[in-house]
Amino acid sequence: MSRIAYVNGRYIPHADAAVHVEDRGYQFADGVYEVVLVYHGAMVDEIPHLDRLDRSLGELRIAAPMSRPALRSVMRELLRRNRIGTGLIYMQVTRGVARRDHPFPKHARPALVLTAKRIALPAAATIENGVKVISIRDIRWERCDIKTVALLPNVLGKQQAKEAGAYEAWQVDDDGLVTEGTSTNAWIVTREGELVTRSANAAILNGITRLTLLKLAEREKLKFVERSFTVDEAKQAREAFISSATSFVTPVTQIDDVVIGNGKAGSVGLGLRQAYLDYAAGEGRTS
Amino acid sequence: MSRIAYVNGRYIPHADAAVHVEDRGYQFADGVYEVVLVYHGAMVDEIPHLDRLDRSLGELRIAAPMSRPALRSVMRELLRRNRIGTGLIYMQVTRGVARRDHPFPKHARPALVLTAKRIALPAAATIENGVKVISIRDIRWERCDIKTVALLPNVLGKQQAKEAGAYEAWQVDDDGLVTEGTSTNAWIVTREGELVTRSANAAILNGITRLTLLKLAEREKLKFVERSFTVDEAKQAREAFISSATSFVTPVTQIDDVVIGNGKAGSVGLGLRQAYLDYAAGEGRTS
Repeated sequence: MSRIAYVNGRYIPHADAAVHVEDRGYQFADGVYEVVLVYHGAMVDEIPHLDRLDRSLGELRIAAPMSRPALRSVMRELLRRNRIGTGLIYMQVTRGVARRDHPFPKHARPALVLTAKRIALPAAATIENGVKVISIRDIRWERCDIKTVALLPNVLGKQQAKEAGAYEAWQVDDDGLVTEGTSTNAWIVTREGELVTRSANAAILNGITRLTLLKLAEREKLKFVERSFTVDEAKQAREAFISSATSFVTPVTQIDDVVIGNGKAGSVGLGLRQAYLDYAAGEGRTS
Repeated sequence: MSRIAYVNGRYIPHADAAVHVEDRGYQFADGVYEVVLVYHGAMVDEIPHLDRLDRSLGELRIAAPMSRPALRSVMRELLRRNRIGTGLIYMQVTRGVARRDHPFPKHARPALVLTAKRIALPAAATIENGVKVISIRDIRWERCDIKTVALLPNVLGKQQAKEAGAYEAWQVDDDGLVTEGTSTNAWIVTREGELVTRSANAAILNGITRLTLLKLAEREKLKFVERSFTVDEAKQAREAFISSATSFVTPVTQIDDVVIGNGKAGSVGLGLRQAYLDYAAGEGRTS
């Protein structure tokens, strides 16, 4: 079965899914996106993702391309047509097509593209052994709270990680504090056993999985705090992990050249991963 | 006659010019561009633009989509097909189409899109009266020296200018120093008659027109220096102007609420504008 994409009102073969070269997403990165996890056939945290999409659109003053009920119908139809069991929905909204000029065009209609694909969950060994991250300078703009497609710095950071044999790069601000990964949020568990992740402001994207994990941590009565931490503090932490809609909780067992804890996934991270998977298979689903 | 675009090897009607939704330009702003002025039927500063394109591609490690002679042929063919007398060529190179994932894809081929359009030169009154600029905070990333399509902050800045009744926004760094406009370089002439523009580093794009103007200033034995200046210094300047491939030299006669000089275009800017137009019609051309 071939993949099907949704592009501005039509379901078409993925290979034919195209947008005009003067779509402002292509020429100006003038658009936003969301990635929604599909787990055992159902979307996880669908409403929070749609809420964040609305917020991103609002910050850029792009109109919603369609009503929420209509968008939810498209998402479901796309899942059905692509027979996604475990995978993701990618959706992108741009300001639309207009003769190239920087200011907002007067008459462009927002463009909407959705794709879906299956993904494989990481092997048990990957989770058990954890992954390596490197620390890099955060060179991004000052509105990282908006989930825009202006992802070039993230691309460069992720590539740098890959070339260093790492899974992710943690970006570090001028004060030496970790902001976030290039596509994930960053977490540590201190030697005192406290779970720490940076509080959300314009310097990071407020991850939906991040928010769910904070909720789960509260429910499980974990000691946690939202505050910034340095790379050095992270290197001395008992545990570290990253979170995102498609990596859930992935343990980090090496930061730059420093092994974290005993080099194996820690219990807090593993516990939160399991709690998240339970959540994704249960109350986090929408049918 | 309908407009013709060039997309990955084919000349097609502009309305049909499309790229795949998984082109990395669309999903990651993973691409670069150039805008080349066409004046009286010939390109201006073609080679410096192609040199800068090569530099941008090199910084992002995107391979050239074709050889320079081939690209120059395409540019000429596009001008011919669109019968451009005075106008511009827009060219964009992205890392190509690949299944969405942040790191550089292994097998993607760089994608090349060119469009051409006619433009009208500004009315004499616009030049004589000058334009207004506003000052805004520079919120961009730290590699503004690369001419990438990650232009969202520039879009937001230009829109802010437009809504303030201004033509351009000058972006100001943490030290209060003007970096550049959202699509132009910034210049002043001090009360002592010295021409000043910020020196080129990672904070600004090293404009091709900027470089040509420096060359012309030297030839005309103007007193000039490349250094940073504050918004306050600009507001007290004798003259101010902006430069770009399509606006040449455009006098600035108001910055925020402050009128510059006597509110009319200044002689240094007008002189440089004329010198540039002579250059564009003469030695700056390539046929």
